[in-house]
Amino acid sequence: AEVKKIAVIAGDGIGPEVVGEALKVLKRTEELFGYQFETEHGLFGGIAIDEKGTPLPQETLDICKNADAVLLGAVGGPKWDNNSKELRPETGLLGIRKALGLFSNIRPANVFDCLKEASTLKPEVLDGTDLIVVRELTGGIYFGEKFRREGEHGEEAVDTCVYNVKEVERIARQGFEIARTRRKKLASVDKANVLETSRLWREVVNRIAVEYPDVELEHVLVDNCAMQLLRRPSSFDVIVTENMFGDIISDEAAMLTGSIGMLSSASLGEGSFGLYEPVHGSAPDIAGQGISNPIATILSVALMFRLTFGYAEAAQCIEDAVKSVLDAGHRTGDIAVDKSKAIGTIEMGDLIIAAM
Amino acid sequence: AEVKKIAVIAGDGIGPEVVGEALKVLKRTEELFGYQFETEHGLFGGIAIDEKGTPLPQETLDICKNADAVLLGAVGGPKWDNNSKELRPETGLLGIRKALGLFSNIRPANVFDCLKEASTLKPEVLDGTDLIVVRELTGGIYFGEKFRREGEHGEEAVDTCVYNVKEVERIARQGFEIARTRRKKLASVDKANVLETSRLWREVVNRIAVEYPDVELEHVLVDNCAMQLLRRPSSFDVIVTENMFGDIISDEAAMLTGSIGMLSSASLGEGSFGLYEPVHGSAPDIAGQGISNPIATILSVALMFRLTFGYAEAAQCIEDAVKSVLDAGHRTGDIAVDKSKAIGTIEMGDLIIAAM
Ligand SMILES: CC(C)[C@H](C(=O)O)[C@@H](O)C(=O)O
Ligand SMILES: CC(C)[C@H](C(=O)O)[C@@H](O)C(=O)O
Repeated sequence: AEVKKIAVIAGDGIGPEVVGEALKVLKRTEELFGYQFETEHGLFGGIAIDEKGTPLPQETLDICKNADAVLLGAVGGPKWDNNSKELRPETGLLGIRKALGLFSNIRPANVFDCLKEASTLKPEVLDGTDLIVVRELTGGIYFGEKFRREGEHGEEAVDTCVYNVKEVERIARQGFEIARTRRKKLASVDKANVLETSRLWREVVNRIAVEYPDVELEHVLVDNCAMQLLRRPSSFDVIVTENMFGDIISDEAAMLTGSIGMLSSASLGEGSFGLYEPVHGSAPDIAGQGISNPIATILSVALMFRLTFGYAEAAQCIEDAVKSVLDAGHRTGDIAVDKSKAIGTIEMGDLIIAAM
Repeated sequence: AEVKKIAVIAGDGIGPEVVGEALKVLKRTEELFGYQFETEHGLFGGIAIDEKGTPLPQETLDICKNADAVLLGAVGGPKWDNNSKELRPETGLLGIRKALGLFSNIRPANVFDCLKEASTLKPEVLDGTDLIVVRELTGGIYFGEKFRREGEHGEEAVDTCVYNVKEVERIARQGFEIARTRRKKLASVDKANVLETSRLWREVVNRIAVEYPDVELEHVLVDNCAMQLLRRPSSFDVIVTENMFGDIISDEAAMLTGSIGMLSSASLGEGSFGLYEPVHGSAPDIAGQGISNPIATILSVALMFRLTFGYAEAAQCIEDAVKSVLDAGHRTGDIAVDKSKAIGTIEMGDLIIAAM
């Protein structure tokens, strides 16, 4: 098989531990399916600030650009929280999204049956919940001009939210395309009763909708969406929204599944290139103890197989292995009911590999 | 007693029905406590569009400005949803907030014990949940410049989010003041890792915090807040945040209580003037059937008594009456478990008056 290049960015906190297990899974798929992967490691986030003086060194960006896909652990931690803007891990995150053109963030929020109890929602409300948030990732208020100025009433701060037709078109298409492969329902989330960018958003989504007559489209105001996710989570299939709303809504959706430690995500650009990472953060409080849960990162590899490489069979193999290990009752501390029986990061990785 | 002037804006949908019951309660407090109220009615929202060609007629604004407080039902409905911006009920809502200087929106989200089951959250998670969202209401991206322009990549839309130091100071003080009367915990919600307005927000909140050493302050990023509300709702006391985040977070908070049909809100300006309204909307689907729940509007009167008039005893009397009617098992359709036993709007109003 063709050699696939994967840029590996372990990052901070538990990042290196969970990525370590994902790499073992990657290796196992080489043995099982005859794939060939070439991995190259890059520094990113807090560790890059410490070692290179910037959260996103050019060298790391080059490694990513030279790869077919990126596997990211997690970045950030209290150590860098009070740094100036240029020396913060988040700045690297925003920078890498923009530099790699990753305009689409795909966040599946599905409920793992064995973890249903971990949700704060009633099990009957969660039943059948399986949704994907498609978040625009390189536009909007995140990347618009920001500055301070002297105003009439003293100092003021300004953020600018900008969207152009092209940006909305491509993310809307993503939403429709993904909905088409699923239950064919798309909820477009905006605040069209207040924002001009949302009015443009809604116009463009309505226009693109004509190309997808098989997909049922509803427009949901963001405040209402925050409510409906709680009231009827299972009624959502695919949600498409702009950057800032997507940040909030995707986190709410992830949390309500009760499975947040198990969720993976993809950030895609044009073509098949993508960056894959667990939804959970760097969890500095438990870093280095070998107790973190590697499943979300392992499932990010499965997502990479599906979305970037088209290795559906291997993706399924990984997902089935995870399921069987969970079904057999194995749990890391974060998802264990009986914490005294929790297993470690490496043990979890080994069990999953053995089950593949 | 001094005559208090109340501007009454019934609005659209179920607005007139629920306001009608609230006015009966108001009258009952005149008899019981010797208060004197003078009410003046104004057209607002959809009905004002139909009858006066604008959602916020000058006459209505004058009635409000001339009053000590405003009681609002609800506005909006599908009939006006596709109107141009100037002819939409929401435009009236934004207009009245700005014209009356209502910079602070106070939304208590508490759980009514008898309705706990209506929440989609597990009862044990809800236990002790009793929070207030203090939302900045006249600044931010809602009121910044908005326009379309031709950009490099075709048409684009722009919204501007602006906050000045003064605006943040006064809403931060509100948050601290309210927290001081409660469990003395304030969560300030922003997105300081991305937005310049949020960085200004956080700086100012930190500066004001020095005046309130007795209040415990935490800064919570908005995406994290959307998650923590689901995970640990009872750990929040007062949440203070900017306009757009407040719109989303307050709706999420209201919905998780399961009591959304029962929640009241206040929008306050400088001094004691305030506008009071139920959190629920105009519910056009059930308007005119006499089945809507007047409790949120009745409780809005209690909130008006507390916050604008300082009539704490009467406020308590109303709240106790509501509680006793609910404890006796009376329910309107929206909150009834056995819908066949549901009572109507007027019956509910009468029971509450009788219990006062
Ligand atoms: C760290 C932060 C800049 C980032 C975002 O807001 O996009 C994070 O919350 C996320 O969702 O990936
Ligand atoms: C109707 C709309 C403009 C309004 C808002 O966003 O402020 C509403 O959602 C609210 O919260 O009062």
